[in-house]
Amino acid sequence: MQYQQRIQAIQQVMKDQEIDLMYLPLSANLFYVAGIKRELVHGTDHNRYGDWLCGGYIAQEGPVKVIAARMGGKFWLKQAADRPWISDVELINEPVEPKMVLQQVLASFGLENGKHTIAIDDRTWGQFVMGVLGILPETRFVSATAIIAPMRMIKTAEELRLMQAASDLTDQVFRNVLPKIKVGMTEFDIESEIDYQFVNLGAEYTSFETGVTFWAPENQVAGASASTEMRRLQYGDSIMFDFGGLVDGYASDFGRSAYCGSPTDEYLRVHDTVIRSQAEAMAAMIADQCTAAEANRIARKVIEDAGYGDGFGHRLGHGIGVTVHEPPFLDGLDEIVLRENMVFTVEPSIVYKNRFANRIEDMVVVTRDGGKPMSMIERELFIID
Amino acid sequence: MQYQQRIQAIQQVMKDQEIDLMYLPLSANLFYVAGIKRELVHGTDHNRYGDWLCGGYIAQEGPVKVIAARMGGKFWLKQAADRPWISDVELINEPVEPKMVLQQVLASFGLENGKHTIAIDDRTWGQFVMGVLGILPETRFVSATAIIAPMRMIKTAEELRLMQAASDLTDQVFRNVLPKIKVGMTEFDIESEIDYQFVNLGAEYTSFETGVTFWAPENQVAGASASTEMRRLQYGDSIMFDFGGLVDGYASDFGRSAYCGSPTDEYLRVHDTVIRSQAEAMAAMIADQCTAAEANRIARKVIEDAGYGDGFGHRLGHGIGVTVHEPPFLDGLDEIVLRENMVFTVEPSIVYKNRFANRIEDMVVVTRDGGKPMSMIERELFIID
Repeated sequence: MQYQQRIQAIQQVMKDQEIDLMYLPLSANLFYVAGIKRELVHGTDHNRYGDWLCGGYIAQEGPVKVIAARMGGKFWLKQAADRPWISDVELINEPVEPKMVLQQVLASFGLENGKHTIAIDDRTWGQFVMGVLGILPETRFVSATAIIAPMRMIKTAEELRLMQAASDLTDQVFRNVLPKIKVGMTEFDIESEIDYQFVNLGAEYTSFETGVTFWAPENQVAGASASTEMRRLQYGDSIMFDFGGLVDGYASDFGRSAYCGSPTDEYLRVHDTVIRSQAEAMAAMIADQCTAAEANRIARKVIEDAGYGDGFGHRLGHGIGVTVHEPPFLDGLDEIVLRENMVFTVEPSIVYKNRFANRIEDMVVVTRDGGKPMSMIERELFIID
Repeated sequence: MQYQQRIQAIQQVMKDQEIDLMYLPLSANLFYVAGIKRELVHGTDHNRYGDWLCGGYIAQEGPVKVIAARMGGKFWLKQAADRPWISDVELINEPVEPKMVLQQVLASFGLENGKHTIAIDDRTWGQFVMGVLGILPETRFVSATAIIAPMRMIKTAEELRLMQAASDLTDQVFRNVLPKIKVGMTEFDIESEIDYQFVNLGAEYTSFETGVTFWAPENQVAGASASTEMRRLQYGDSIMFDFGGLVDGYASDFGRSAYCGSPTDEYLRVHDTVIRSQAEAMAAMIADQCTAAEANRIARKVIEDAGYGDGFGHRLGHGIGVTVHEPPFLDGLDEIVLRENMVFTVEPSIVYKNRFANRIEDMVVVTRDGGKPMSMIERELFIID
């Protein structure tokens, strides 16, 4: 099973680097390492009793120990069931002082006095760090993320299968939503329909805030702010779609563009340029023969040569997997060599405020024959009429 | 202006406790202290360049300095505009090494060598703590949350006005959604309608995951899991609503119950018991004359006396303000005395799996005359027919 392999690989690094314990909150890294799904992060803080020390604890040997809050505890018990690489789930009940629980957990791994090294996820709460220092003041902290992030870059066959399923579901969302789009709808109307379709088709939730943006000529531009989400679609608007879902713990990220009414010659040229930019970058993304920075440069050159370089204002893409944005990044700085079965978004755009915008985005697997897109949705310009 | 007063109060504590610097991520506490709104937390990690050191930095004197990622940077610039208690917003541009930015920020506050004390929000990322220790290994960390949480407990007149507006909007959501509920709908259908109404009426986003749960007799129970969200409403189901929105940075939290069809005598008795439990607790919540634990005990006694004590399985309520769950808590342990203008949810319930469930929830302001609910929605049992 891949989780046991991952835990063993981490434990080998812990031995090599003399790390006594690794702590991972209930988040993306713990899902990757032990298969324990995240809950949706809500709009405002939840403040469950003892939440700051919840998560997975891993020593140099043996299974993962999970600590979870009583409130919502059934979720974590279910996540850990029938998984031999997880020893147990301990729920924190309200009369028990969370600091005592932490002290007992540390002691159960032999961390009682003196100087120890604990690897923590980069997004561990400061409260945890202060809690540990209150018990073991000499503790040295190192980054667990720095150990796990490189492991996450290259996807296994099983991960690629899950990501393809997330991509297929996302395709279906787009196919279901597209025919419903009419002049007079708001961005928010369309976003709501996309969000509904995701959950209705079986996604856990969206992998980021769904983005539908109308770009009108002259003074009717609708950006990403809440107020403009209520502007109504008009003829002459270009539309950018940017959305994705979390399916079985893996994120999708997808983008297409559409035009409302009969597109101008310039917009058709812009669309063609964006498509060519993406195609040339994908063709170059051959395993072991291209760096992240090179892929970014190739895509950018197509757009610059067409005279729209100043309209492409962001990096070409990002790694994707159990989180929607993860290393490596297809930007001008990342000289990492692309390896087989890395997965990136490839998402060139040409955006001019008060004129138009066009972007295409696919999840792309690096292979020996170049980058292969996961989405089956055509790359034509979609027309809303 | 209340933000300047809050910053001064914090700086006084920092002087008293010899804290050199306070760091608050872009989160609830920074909103409370400096008026800088949070962005919605998305489904999976975003990983913006330099995100781990973004937030507000406060010394013993002077204005707040804000550091933010370039991606999404316009949002933070707008949040800081025309606010004299914020000195500036510095965006982290991609060729600049984030660790260097942190080193410069610390130095700009005079933290260059030796031993310093930094107060950090409990939810500061571990990456920040490790980053600081890499620059200033002798740093002592203390909790900024422990300083700010007590300030947040008692609401100002302005805060009460904002919370009333959040409550009014939530009432309107319920009024708009209730007539749309029909036999055959799923929990998810109703939740989607609630979420749509919130944003359509001007909420920033929901304050937590909207909960609509159907409770059927016998073997048709629908809990909180994704699969049961697709079960269709039938006659004989009881329905619990639990939702809230974030409006101008303040959270609402609201609950009512309904019955599909003609309620049983027992369900009517249960509903009456829950209403009486809430009413007796509210009557007792007189400023300076009741503790959190007492309010919890009074509500519980009504339900126990009716013979349903084992159906009330959670605390009576929680503080609410810029986050949905915050101290103090109306549980059996919290002996804090209730003060004027504290705001709590008061939410007794009677829940029996495979039988029925009933809960009512209001935001309640503590006054000298007892607890006053903010919602104008009646407490009758709603009937879906």
